[in-house]
Amino acid sequence: MNAPEQALLPSLVDETIRRALAEDVGAGDVTTAALIPPDQVGVATAHTKEAGVLAGVDVAARVFTLLDDAVGTTTLVGDGAHLQPGATILRVEGPLRAILTGERVALNFLRHLSGVASLTREFVAAAAGAGAQIVDTRKTTPGLRHLEKYAVRIGGGHNHRIGLYDGVLIKDNHIAACGSIAAAVQRARAAVHHLLKIEVEAATLAQVAEALAAGADGILLDNMSAEMMAAAVDMARGKAFTEASGGISLESVKDAAQTGVDLISVGMLTHSAPALDISLDIEE
Amino acid sequence: MNAPEQALLPSLVDETIRRALAEDVGAGDVTTAALIPPDQVGVATAHTKEAGVLAGVDVAARVFTLLDDAVGTTTLVGDGAHLQPGATILRVEGPLRAILTGERVALNFLRHLSGVASLTREFVAAAAGAGAQIVDTRKTTPGLRHLEKYAVRIGGGHNHRIGLYDGVLIKDNHIAACGSIAAAVQRARAAVHHLLKIEVEAATLAQVAEALAAGADGILLDNMSAEMMAAAVDMARGKAFTEASGGISLESVKDAAQTGVDLISVGMLTHSAPALDISLDIEE
Amino acid sequence: MNAPEQALLPSLVDETIRRALAEDVGAGDVTTAALIPPDQVGVATAHTKEAGVLAGVDVAARVFTLLDDAVGTTTLVGDGAHLQPGATILRVEGPLRAILTGERVALNFLRHLSGVASLTREFVAAAAGAGAQIVDTRKTTPGLRHLEKYAVRIGGGHNHRIGLYDGVLIKDNHIAACGSIAAAVQRARAAVHHLLKIEVEAATLAQVAEALAAGADGILLDNMSAEMMAAAVDMARGKAFTEASGGISLESVKDAAQTGVDLISVGMLTHSAPALDISLDIEE
Amino acid sequence: MNAPEQALLPSLVDETIRRALAEDVGAGDVTTAALIPPDQVGVATAHTKEAGVLAGVDVAARVFTLLDDAVGTTTLVGDGAHLQPGATILRVEGPLRAILTGERVALNFLRHLSGVASLTREFVAAAAGAGAQIVDTRKTTPGLRHLEKYAVRIGGGHNHRIGLYDGVLIKDNHIAACGSIAAAVQRARAAVHHLLKIEVEAATLAQVAEALAAGADGILLDNMSAEMMAAAVDMARGKAFTEASGGISLESVKDAAQTGVDLISVGMLTHSAPALDISLDIEE
Amino acid sequence: MNAPEQALLPSLVDETIRRALAEDVGAGDVTTAALIPPDQVGVATAHTKEAGVLAGVDVAARVFTLLDDAVGTTTLVGDGAHLQPGATILRVEGPLRAILTGERVALNFLRHLSGVASLTREFVAAAAGAGAQIVDTRKTTPGLRHLEKYAVRIGGGHNHRIGLYDGVLIKDNHIAACGSIAAAVQRARAAVHHLLKIEVEAATLAQVAEALAAGADGILLDNMSAEMMAAAVDMARGKAFTEASGGISLESVKDAAQTGVDLISVGMLTHSAPALDISLDIEE
Amino acid sequence: MNAPEQALLPSLVDETIRRALAEDVGAGDVTTAALIPPDQVGVATAHTKEAGVLAGVDVAARVFTLLDDAVGTTTLVGDGAHLQPGATILRVEGPLRAILTGERVALNFLRHLSGVASLTREFVAAAAGAGAQIVDTRKTTPGLRHLEKYAVRIGGGHNHRIGLYDGVLIKDNHIAACGSIAAAVQRARAAVHHLLKIEVEAATLAQVAEALAAGADGILLDNMSAEMMAAAVDMARGKAFTEASGGISLESVKDAAQTGVDLISVGMLTHSAPALDISLDIEE
Repeated sequence: MNAPEQALLPSLVDETIRRALAEDVGAGDVTTAALIPPDQVGVATAHTKEAGVLAGVDVAARVFTLLDDAVGTTTLVGDGAHLQPGATILRVEGPLRAILTGERVALNFLRHLSGVASLTREFVAAAAGAGAQIVDTRKTTPGLRHLEKYAVRIGGGHNHRIGLYDGVLIKDNHIAACGSIAAAVQRARAAVHHLLKIEVEAATLAQVAEALAAGADGILLDNMSAEMMAAAVDMARGKAFTEASGGISLESVKDAAQTGVDLISVGMLTHSAPALDISLDIEE
Repeated sequence: MNAPEQALLPSLVDETIRRALAEDVGAGDVTTAALIPPDQVGVATAHTKEAGVLAGVDVAARVFTLLDDAVGTTTLVGDGAHLQPGATILRVEGPLRAILTGERVALNFLRHLSGVASLTREFVAAAAGAGAQIVDTRKTTPGLRHLEKYAVRIGGGHNHRIGLYDGVLIKDNHIAACGSIAAAVQRARAAVHHLLKIEVEAATLAQVAEALAAGADGILLDNMSAEMMAAAVDMARGKAFTEASGGISLESVKDAAQTGVDLISVGMLTHSAPALDISLDIEE
Repeated sequence: MNAPEQALLPSLVDETIRRALAEDVGAGDVTTAALIPPDQVGVATAHTKEAGVLAGVDVAARVFTLLDDAVGTTTLVGDGAHLQPGATILRVEGPLRAILTGERVALNFLRHLSGVASLTREFVAAAAGAGAQIVDTRKTTPGLRHLEKYAVRIGGGHNHRIGLYDGVLIKDNHIAACGSIAAAVQRARAAVHHLLKIEVEAATLAQVAEALAAGADGILLDNMSAEMMAAAVDMARGKAFTEASGGISLESVKDAAQTGVDLISVGMLTHSAPALDISLDIEE
Repeated sequence: MNAPEQALLPSLVDETIRRALAEDVGAGDVTTAALIPPDQVGVATAHTKEAGVLAGVDVAARVFTLLDDAVGTTTLVGDGAHLQPGATILRVEGPLRAILTGERVALNFLRHLSGVASLTREFVAAAAGAGAQIVDTRKTTPGLRHLEKYAVRIGGGHNHRIGLYDGVLIKDNHIAACGSIAAAVQRARAAVHHLLKIEVEAATLAQVAEALAAGADGILLDNMSAEMMAAAVDMARGKAFTEASGGISLESVKDAAQTGVDLISVGMLTHSAPALDISLDIEE
Repeated sequence: MNAPEQALLPSLVDETIRRALAEDVGAGDVTTAALIPPDQVGVATAHTKEAGVLAGVDVAARVFTLLDDAVGTTTLVGDGAHLQPGATILRVEGPLRAILTGERVALNFLRHLSGVASLTREFVAAAAGAGAQIVDTRKTTPGLRHLEKYAVRIGGGHNHRIGLYDGVLIKDNHIAACGSIAAAVQRARAAVHHLLKIEVEAATLAQVAEALAAGADGILLDNMSAEMMAAAVDMARGKAFTEASGGISLESVKDAAQTGVDLISVGMLTHSAPALDISLDIEE
Repeated sequence: MNAPEQALLPSLVDETIRRALAEDVGAGDVTTAALIPPDQVGVATAHTKEAGVLAGVDVAARVFTLLDDAVGTTTLVGDGAHLQPGATILRVEGPLRAILTGERVALNFLRHLSGVASLTREFVAAAAGAGAQIVDTRKTTPGLRHLEKYAVRIGGGHNHRIGLYDGVLIKDNHIAACGSIAAAVQRARAAVHHLLKIEVEAATLAQVAEALAAGADGILLDNMSAEMMAAAVDMARGKAFTEASGGISLESVKDAAQTGVDLISVGMLTHSAPALDISLDIEE
């Protein structure tokens, strides 16, 4: 959890924050500019109202310092922490204008990313014990791919490929266009560079067999029953990794894990996680 | 519903799509480039698997034409349509590469925006009959402010201010910093231009009275009970509009509406709407 | 004057300066690069040659520090100061290359913005005593909207809406397209969010009456005689604010103000203000 | 006039227009979106209210087509035309939304550039007969360098160097830093490439002599009396071109021209030209 | 050769061309603008003066149409063609201004990319028969990574990973920092996603053995003699792919290939390929 | 050598580096992120393996500080130094992640620019004694114009015009389009500003005579024999500068120089210079 490799590129974070500030602040925060003198200072703290896993606290802190580098921020708990209701997360201190103007954007990041991490943690816990990794998908919110995949890692999940450029996944439509799994794998092997593995989607055991015969490095088991998945895992053992995919919920994830698959991919981690309820209070 | 004023700026849509494609496609879709010849064509259709309100179909279609303007798109139902499970939404036809490469980004937009519109519609329906408008908040997904606010309109909701630049909302922190509601409203009136109204947050009836005395154009009733809200509405009648805010759910929205408030703002419309389950199938 | 709310967004200022430097310096200041060693330092001061109101001194200073953060700048008088001929405004000290390369861009900003502030001050003085505010328009120099509106504030004027996005102004063409003032106001009220006021252009007293009946928040009195304006002001009193607009000069502004209008908008503040004559001298 | 070499780079024009639209339209023209249906069409024509020289008509037309390429534009007179009051300049036809939203930005360009061209023409006319060219300076409006220099050409003037990168002008401050004119010219000759000429500023006849001895290609005569200029022109004849500079007005330009100088540079062409009064009317 | 997967992303090509045009054309091609009327048309053809492999003809053609879409281009031979001296490659027809202004940038791309493809072809030919692929490295010209890797494919070579993001290559410095090859491979396996292979650099047979024991997917044989490489290939057979790397020249590549390695990476393909001599002639 | 005027604009360097890092690092250096803890520090030094002229050491150092400003860099020899094999150039110290991630991009710049400077120095040495300057051309690598021209200066060469915007060079195609050299020079003189010189390409002595009669400031002698060049130089003496151009190699440059030409332009300085072999070693 929270391992070194999980850091986000600072330039990417800054660019994403600047875009969010641009759409919220635009030509200026007219309320704050009218009411708050530029030299007034203040202190604010972020608290959670519900339990969950924290993700994005550095992103939230960065919102304020990008607005005004005179703001000081103190992270009280780090990403990955299990929060109890009422926990204090972040303290910001400095020009009150920047604190008030940045509040909503900071919370929008923090609440969304913590929501993703919290849901991931629930899936990880539900699947625990069986050795399967919970992985994300490309079903992410447009513009937030890297941040959401970071939140998945913070929640104890693992990432699938980041995009279409760093992994080969041959889906049913690709197979149909090529004529057969064998032809598809062969074309892929000839064309992609030698550091990329090739995973093939299979919906039946016959397709699993075909993919294995074609030399696939991994098999995505698409919407299979637990029984069929277990059979597929048996077939693939020692030859290819297996990934369960399709409509897996908190209720069904344990059964999927117990089939022996290596990976369970869950789209809702990133497309339907509700925000975690976190707020910012100015201290008086 | 779906009124003329609801259109999105094409340049903004394109920029948002390009950013989403950049993070998903990056240096290239290695699978599709390896497997699909550039001159192979195909047809695909988008279907919904669950009931809901459609939003973003033109955005989804635009994803494909931005990838390759040789793709033709046909919108079968427009934004705002009430979809039944199985309904066909969009047909795309042309170079198969562009269809396969764009599929996920197109669906990510369509599913998220339709999720927002569908949840909005549920709130509108739950509040129906009492004359209150359902409005959104600034609790939006970073980078998607304009698209989500569009989806709220499509779902039958109304927009609150778009950002900090086009409306004055004096919150408790502003008031604390100014010393009193009267001082805050006075400063705002002196400083902001004459086409912006001034809304003041109030948590008690005493604060409602103060805000009215200060000449506020509207009052945000923050986390009040239905009874207190009804009293506040009485006080404000003919003097200022009223907005119910704070923790309003599908269960409580009807009670809030029946207090006579003009507006009910609901953060979860944009921060916690689950995606609508829509998929794209290649026709063979 | 020079109130807290008048600050410019630093990021906007920097972006505007960078664009100006790009078009002036391009691939490099070949004269200075050829003649001045990189380690030569110097001091320069900016003086005004004519009387006026200073605006943009921080923008001018920023030009030099953006070129080379080794340049130190000292603002001797602040924006809003009434300058007498010969007054010293700004002192810059450091690498001579940056001082010479930045001189013209810094002065271009300072002279233009001070020209706008100075002309605004003249209008404010000419209208003084009658209670009407001098406001700007959207007739600004392309690319300098925010800076020019800042200079108007520094000159003692007020801003009208910043752009088409933060205020509703229904003009004759909108009315013609809708069929009537009543229809136009009704459509606007239904479509725009609740924190925006609605102003309607009227050229006759009949139109003033129509606009008031339709519930407009304000009336723009377009090219009316002083007598007609006075009558319109009487009609609108207690119901809507009034704005005089159209061809108002330094000679006619007092008459307009005495009609009792709330606002007088003057396009020439931003589209035809001559530059204030300010120069930079290297001290030897 | 209006010679082939006077064209503006289309990409530069588009970028400048997009920036102007961004600051005016921002998140959307709320008035027009609320009042005008997307399929309503109309026709508008631009007229001048005063006499002058037209410049920027293609820029103005481009504003509308960049907003919506369904707008058709017809240029009725070209840049460089001498306009009489009431002259019709441009006709735009198509979606009324784009016409109304683009009106102000289009006019802001057209009025400003025509103002520059008109003032240039006055200087050219005032200096006529003596063989001196009227040239502009780097005292331009930040962000509009290329457009304003184009307008100067349209008005019959010529351009000085475009920026610091395409010409060498050694000013008093450069000379002071180098120790002497001779040293400065020598350094420049050694360092700059062989296709750039070297011009030297001189305030006295002694400096003119020094510059000529140093082999300058041209001499800028800084704030000299007409008598001194005439003497300088005599000294430089056959050796270097001469440029009159400093405080030249419509009243004094004829005297300057008659000294025999080759060029007369006039800063006010671009920093203080009042806008030409042009408006757009929707036809009904 | 020239297979479907070799296409470049059009948006990337356009962005690269626009940057090149910006640095060459800047504020305008003053020579062409002065001499060539905007309506003059012409025809030009590109010829090669020496033998080689063509790469980048579509990029070169695109330079002209980006300058002016009235230019028509006809590609006479496609990328991958073996050119003999004098061969005609490309015909462009249309506005002479765009042809003259774009000539140098178009040739700069075409000559450089054809140089890369030609050198690659020489390496491929020199290594032919032994079954080893010639692959490129990350030693590319800054800003041209994707274009140069395309040219390598056109020349018959294969690509190594595109960048640091789509493949794992554990080098000596990584190993030193981790303490051992085993530790490094283990950390990588735990942290990177399941579609990326892991390649390990080895300079000795002991390191090859360590990497194989650690489960590396491939071994980079760093600066080994042919004999040592052959031994390493024997050790790795059936367990991992092997890549020869380090100082391989046209003279030594055959020996390297005959060791049985799978891949031979050659930095000079992209960092030191001389340009192919191609010119553009205007037809008269 | 290494004179003050040779500095590169810091903003241009940073932008070029950021682009190079973007294409190499993309979404992240997966190897380094997986293997190296964020707090591990290290030291690395850059050495040359072959003799040559150093160029770009500050660019290389900047790569690391742009990745992480906690990296410290020490330049051990400056640009322009004559390196012997084994010489130590640069020392970087700090977070090991940034050092490993930036290594390749830093070297790609350093090796390429040093290659350009080294080849330039060879040409300068080969031509020494005859008084002709070695100048570059516009045959540069797309995107690296300014850096390569800097490397030419470092190598002892001089720059020709930077682009199409800062010098007039009338080529055969321009002349053909204008009808005659006289017409072309006349048009150029009338249209371009007074600080730009006019150079004309000539392939025969008759054309040299024509260009001189037309008043050209310089003559480009295109692919002439040494004898013809010498004759052209005689004709032009005292009237125009002369530039030898076309296929000049290290073998032929001395002969060209001895004809008495002022400039010798050499395209291969920038389009075909092999990289200098420099590497970075982590100290253990």
